[in-house]
Amino acid sequence: MEKKYLLHHVFFWLNNPSSVEDRNKLIEGLSTLKGIEVIKKLHIGVIASTEKREVVDTSWDVSELMFFENEVDQKVYQDHPIHQDFVKNYAHLWRKVVVFDAQDV
Amino acid sequence: MEKKYLLHHVFFWLNNPSSVEDRNKLIEGLSTLKGIEVIKKLHIGVIASTEKREVVDTSWDVSELMFFENEVDQKVYQDHPIHQDFVKNYAHLWRKVVVFDAQDV
Repeated sequence: MEKKYLLHHVFFWLNNPSSVEDRNKLIEGLSTLKGIEVIKKLHIGVIASTEKREVVDTSWDVSELMFFENEVDQKVYQDHPIHQDFVKNYAHLWRKVVVFDAQDV
Repeated sequence: MEKKYLLHHVFFWLNNPSSVEDRNKLIEGLSTLKGIEVIKKLHIGVIASTEKREVVDTSWDVSELMFFENEVDQKVYQDHPIHQDFVKNYAHLWRKVVVFDAQDV
């Protein structure tokens, strides 16, 4: 049986969605999170060029997906100085962020 | 360098969010999608018990995350008879579905 994870899905809406520079800066910021050892896998994404169906939300700009072993590790991540620095240094780039925390069944 | 994927994040809101039976039925339905060969990884989830912060959306009921190699494979999945059957047999369970398609950078 495959290992079960807590998936931390995060979607960011930039203040300046047309700014490739801001988008790249946020991607750079998210990359710094790789240094946090409780993150088992990290994916950073942008809108994929799939079909634009009614149910597909394409209003966001940058996504992040992290795999944690459990809620305790996710909390360690939230409080980790590298994460705190990320928020301090990059939060000015986004106007909205939405998080979905899903536990593998 | 790690392989880059197209991540297909899907969140479902049930018609009867209080029905564990309906939730399990939808999870059972999503499990049938494993038979589709273009899906490289499949995660099925429910709300995790992480801290309820303002940015965390906890209004959904069931999540699905699929890894595809590219947009072509994602389209093959959309049109696949197993997926079409899933929609036909289980769509009555949900009132809302939101999709985020993210390309790994």
